[in-house]
Amino acid sequence: MRVLAIGAHPDDVEGLCGGTLIKCAARGDHVTIMIATNGNVGSPTLGREEIAAIRKKEAEASAALIGADLIWMGYDDEFLFHDHETRLAFINAIRKANPDFMIVHGSNDYHPDHRISGEIAIDCRIPVTVPLIETEYPPMSSIPHVFIMDNVGSIGFDPEVYVDVSDSFELKSQMIKCHKSQDEWLQHMYGDDYVELLSRPSVIRGSAIGVKYAEAFRNLPLYPVMGGSHLLP
Amino acid sequence: MRVLAIGAHPDDVEGLCGGTLIKCAARGDHVTIMIATNGNVGSPTLGREEIAAIRKKEAEASAALIGADLIWMGYDDEFLFHDHETRLAFINAIRKANPDFMIVHGSNDYHPDHRISGEIAIDCRIPVTVPLIETEYPPMSSIPHVFIMDNVGSIGFDPEVYVDVSDSFELKSQMIKCHKSQDEWLQHMYGDDYVELLSRPSVIRGSAIGVKYAEAFRNLPLYPVMGGSHLLP
Amino acid sequence: MRVLAIGAHPDDVEGLCGGTLIKCAARGDHVTIMIATNGNVGSPTLGREEIAAIRKKEAEASAALIGADLIWMGYDDEFLFHDHETRLAFINAIRKANPDFMIVHGSNDYHPDHRISGEIAIDCRIPVTVPLIETEYPPMSSIPHVFIMDNVGSIGFDPEVYVDVSDSFELKSQMIKCHKSQDEWLQHMYGDDYVELLSRPSVIRGSAIGVKYAEAFRNLPLYPVMGGSHLLP
Amino acid sequence: MRVLAIGAHPDDVEGLCGGTLIKCAARGDHVTIMIATNGNVGSPTLGREEIAAIRKKEAEASAALIGADLIWMGYDDEFLFHDHETRLAFINAIRKANPDFMIVHGSNDYHPDHRISGEIAIDCRIPVTVPLIETEYPPMSSIPHVFIMDNVGSIGFDPEVYVDVSDSFELKSQMIKCHKSQDEWLQHMYGDDYVELLSRPSVIRGSAIGVKYAEAFRNLPLYPVMGGSHLLP
Amino acid sequence: MRVLAIGAHPDDVEGLCGGTLIKCAARGDHVTIMIATNGNVGSPTLGREEIAAIRKKEAEASAALIGADLIWMGYDDEFLFHDHETRLAFINAIRKANPDFMIVHGSNDYHPDHRISGEIAIDCRIPVTVPLIETEYPPMSSIPHVFIMDNVGSIGFDPEVYVDVSDSFELKSQMIKCHKSQDEWLQHMYGDDYVELLSRPSVIRGSAIGVKYAEAFRNLPLYPVMGGSHLLP
Amino acid sequence: MRVLAIGAHPDDVEGLCGGTLIKCAARGDHVTIMIATNGNVGSPTLGREEIAAIRKKEAEASAALIGADLIWMGYDDEFLFHDHETRLAFINAIRKANPDFMIVHGSNDYHPDHRISGEIAIDCRIPVTVPLIETEYPPMSSIPHVFIMDNVGSIGFDPEVYVDVSDSFELKSQMIKCHKSQDEWLQHMYGDDYVELLSRPSVIRGSAIGVKYAEAFRNLPLYPVMGGSHLLP
Repeated sequence: MRVLAIGAHPDDVEGLCGGTLIKCAARGDHVTIMIATNGNVGSPTLGREEIAAIRKKEAEASAALIGADLIWMGYDDEFLFHDHETRLAFINAIRKANPDFMIVHGSNDYHPDHRISGEIAIDCRIPVTVPLIETEYPPMSSIPHVFIMDNVGSIGFDPEVYVDVSDSFELKSQMIKCHKSQDEWLQHMYGDDYVELLSRPSVIRGSAIGVKYAEAFRNLPLYPVMGGSHLLP
Repeated sequence: MRVLAIGAHPDDVEGLCGGTLIKCAARGDHVTIMIATNGNVGSPTLGREEIAAIRKKEAEASAALIGADLIWMGYDDEFLFHDHETRLAFINAIRKANPDFMIVHGSNDYHPDHRISGEIAIDCRIPVTVPLIETEYPPMSSIPHVFIMDNVGSIGFDPEVYVDVSDSFELKSQMIKCHKSQDEWLQHMYGDDYVELLSRPSVIRGSAIGVKYAEAFRNLPLYPVMGGSHLLP
Repeated sequence: MRVLAIGAHPDDVEGLCGGTLIKCAARGDHVTIMIATNGNVGSPTLGREEIAAIRKKEAEASAALIGADLIWMGYDDEFLFHDHETRLAFINAIRKANPDFMIVHGSNDYHPDHRISGEIAIDCRIPVTVPLIETEYPPMSSIPHVFIMDNVGSIGFDPEVYVDVSDSFELKSQMIKCHKSQDEWLQHMYGDDYVELLSRPSVIRGSAIGVKYAEAFRNLPLYPVMGGSHLLP
Repeated sequence: MRVLAIGAHPDDVEGLCGGTLIKCAARGDHVTIMIATNGNVGSPTLGREEIAAIRKKEAEASAALIGADLIWMGYDDEFLFHDHETRLAFINAIRKANPDFMIVHGSNDYHPDHRISGEIAIDCRIPVTVPLIETEYPPMSSIPHVFIMDNVGSIGFDPEVYVDVSDSFELKSQMIKCHKSQDEWLQHMYGDDYVELLSRPSVIRGSAIGVKYAEAFRNLPLYPVMGGSHLLP
Repeated sequence: MRVLAIGAHPDDVEGLCGGTLIKCAARGDHVTIMIATNGNVGSPTLGREEIAAIRKKEAEASAALIGADLIWMGYDDEFLFHDHETRLAFINAIRKANPDFMIVHGSNDYHPDHRISGEIAIDCRIPVTVPLIETEYPPMSSIPHVFIMDNVGSIGFDPEVYVDVSDSFELKSQMIKCHKSQDEWLQHMYGDDYVELLSRPSVIRGSAIGVKYAEAFRNLPLYPVMGGSHLLP
Repeated sequence: MRVLAIGAHPDDVEGLCGGTLIKCAARGDHVTIMIATNGNVGSPTLGREEIAAIRKKEAEASAALIGADLIWMGYDDEFLFHDHETRLAFINAIRKANPDFMIVHGSNDYHPDHRISGEIAIDCRIPVTVPLIETEYPPMSSIPHVFIMDNVGSIGFDPEVYVDVSDSFELKSQMIKCHKSQDEWLQHMYGDDYVELLSRPSVIRGSAIGVKYAEAFRNLPLYPVMGGSHLLP
């Protein structure tokens, strides 16, 4: 199985589906983490290029913990837009990862970069298979299945599928801790410890199914539904 | 795995989740079909007792095709109500089947008996495990997972889980054909061939996932979600 | 065309679909107004029997203005419940009216009697056609189409169909004014002029389609949908 | 201000709106806790009457911590139904509490007793003011505002109003701990520490608004909306 | 009556509202089919310009079968975006067709080009009437009514209006068959016979209203709703 | 308290939240009205620049009535798009107003400029606080709370919060009347008196809470919810 998780910023994927990716890796899946923006405004003290460079390193360290490939799209943080060039770049990147299923942000996530990265990914689902749309990587042989991941605050998201991540929670926390620069930043923005902030959805979703930690997903409800919940670990 | 499908009338289960039950039986599950009403008004020509007796025989024949147990509740067709006695009877019947998961009608099904049988079953989900609620059969050791099945017309039902039933469709049709008395009746009511009427949701749900026939389900979105889609075949 | 409007209390139908009934009558439809409760608590000063008697007279006067039949079910105001006896009584009453379509209260109306009368009516939609369910009046030959009417406050109701009632608004106001006893009562309950209170949904729904007054409806989204919006005047 | 919180079982109110009631009491509101059932099946070891007696004592102790009145309806646990007698008993009890606003369970709560107690309470909202509906206590002078409280699992509930209960969380935990008998029971049912189970919604709702603990509510979206969020502390 | 159906690709309109357009034409309406993209990636074997040229011819042949005008917008397949230039081009094209009502794709259709073409069309609904927005064709005299058409897979679409197309199904199939190039392509993409794939929504929607084939629509729920379901044949 | 209301066109804010802004001003809030477009196509007779100049004067006069600041963004009427430049301009403008809460158009408003101005404003909610996003005005110290305002037609909008504007309705009407040029235009477009058209939502929302006039809002349901309904007057 090949898995592609697409986060808007470095650390999004760790918080919302890190435990699931750990379980995917553990069962032998090929895991790719793709990050749309370079996080280049995520610091109260450093300059744009400095913080972007740091965040890329942090993302690489986190991905390395589970042996995942990292695709760094490098768009400006807070300014991701859905235009022709970005659609094409996403098509190419998804083809590179060549996933059986993708995990993406949903349309009522709290952050515009989240919503927009999810929308672009979903809109690439069919074009990635079309031969006449030529990019660096070859067309995929079939449409990947798409899961929508939970959001911070767990608002407006009624889960369809839960993955018990109690056993992978320790490693998930380590992945989150790779993003050290965000400790200061999320304190600045939301007055909150970043590990606690990022792992909180796992607590409430775990409680809903009677385990310590869980991550929650919905299937993309669009034709053709190419797979289903059994794809998840 | 123990499976309990609860239909309001004889033939409901066959049309909406028959293929799934066939696959459950094939993988070795213990399958029980429970029917809330006796179908005693489902004839344009026969009397109440006559048609009820016929329909019970038909239901037995259909269940026998897949080696399923049959629980015949015997409530009056079109007059199922959710009262204390019926709740208790359902608790007892569910305990008899002792399922890992139940498949029930949803709250926006077209027929009141469907909606109400589903509501009762869902409201029994927790009490079946409570020792101080004493019935003929002993309390269950855990809350069963609940799937909501599709409805005739496929209106107001956005599937979360699809089961490919292409391979079991021939046997599903045979199960439906056991309910011979309904051929005349559904012609009378809806002007429609009963096998075609009852198997039509399988066509559209199949088309949504790119197979010939599928059946569609939703998980009951209520705490504690005890299992999940991987329980299905 | 035969039309049946089912209100929970005397005056409900006038406020929420009176203009539409006027247009139905004007095009030659046979119109029946059925009222579930007797309004016997709707007075700050009179006794139960007194006010019930007055309200029945008022309802008769209102129905007479458009030549509509009146079916007075007589259940206790504020205490309508959905039980076997009431279901059967509704089946019989609907068969008496024998409608091509019914207009009923919806499930998120503000008043329990409204919600419950609508629920009962909808649950009778199929049984009214079943020969083995025997009541005073004979089974209907086909399932009536069902429209859900707007609610007071116009909350939780997104219209599918609008009927322009600008031309019948004067007569609608007269129908409302037949319910003189409610002037004092609604002042007591809601501090509001009753004609204004009852006709206010027409103002907002009219504004939505660019006419002076309109009434709004939804089709019942349940199989089998037997007709559609073209049934309305 | 007079406040009435209606829980299905002893301990429901503490978990879902206890912090809010503490803040109400602290600002001088008259608080009443009404409990629909007697919790008489909530034990893996004791008999019905024994456990019911214990639970009543526990509820009294909890209410006493904030000086709240307790109304003990005493219906059988797991078997609350919405019938004429129960509606009337609720009308009387609500009149006794005579609240400016009520806090009740919502329609997609996980437990039937929760859903049904909330439904009854909502359906009493108007009748409590009607003089001709005579009960022991006199009719109320105006319709109380209604808030729907969160549910365990926080599923299917998108909050409209949040109350920061960080400061009252310690006392809320003490209220929960009064229900000692439930520690064993909830371990039996859900394998979970009862204080943690019951306070978990406060964690996730707090996280959504950037505080340590919060409780979440929705306004009842039905005419007439008699007050609003400013009623809450 | 003047009708404008706007499809994202050649063949969309035939599958989702072809039967309705046939009935429009039959009652004397002036029908225009507008196609947003040129379908220039819809082939597993041909080049972009070759397949675009073929698809235009196929679309012309299909439109000719019912005497409809064809507006060919020519945007790149899979890359329709909602920008200033495209909005203006749509305004001009809609003014050319000058419709009483438009039929467009909905916001939860499966394909981005579908969703985006529908969004642009809806956003042109008001500007087409504004004189100071100058394009080749003159401003329309009133805002056209808008219907949303069903989607392939019939997911996330609860119909408001059904049009019985049983009698026009044969001609609808011929219109679909004009798009011969898509037989190979849809086999490639979805492993499905194209006539069956494209006509399947008609089967399920027909079943919902008890006829052989039907097409399903929703009214655009936005102020000012200019017409309504009676506009449909 | 600092308040920012963002309307798509001159006069939108007056109709949908004018009474609330009046109450804000009256309690001493600093009120800013920001208008996204210049209204330069809103005339059946004048040229673009002429009508834009008039509308700016009208907006200034209206804002002056309550001592509000006016931010005139000047985008072309009917052609507001959500691109990088516009996002940045909104960030700067919001920083200039520096609000505790913003009132914006919602996503199912009837007019594209409304929807898009609301979407941009919501997507600026977080970036306005980010220091590395540099614009003319300094970053804000915290994320502003966001309220969604009602829409014309009151369709698809179920209010969470109501503000009683009965006492400020006279002044609200005067604010609306400042937009004299729209009397002719709205007659042209919608055949409706502009004061009546723009104040009609206040009538229906008032009726829902039993007062003469009210305005209705929803909280933005996105993390982090920074305030709540108590911010409103």
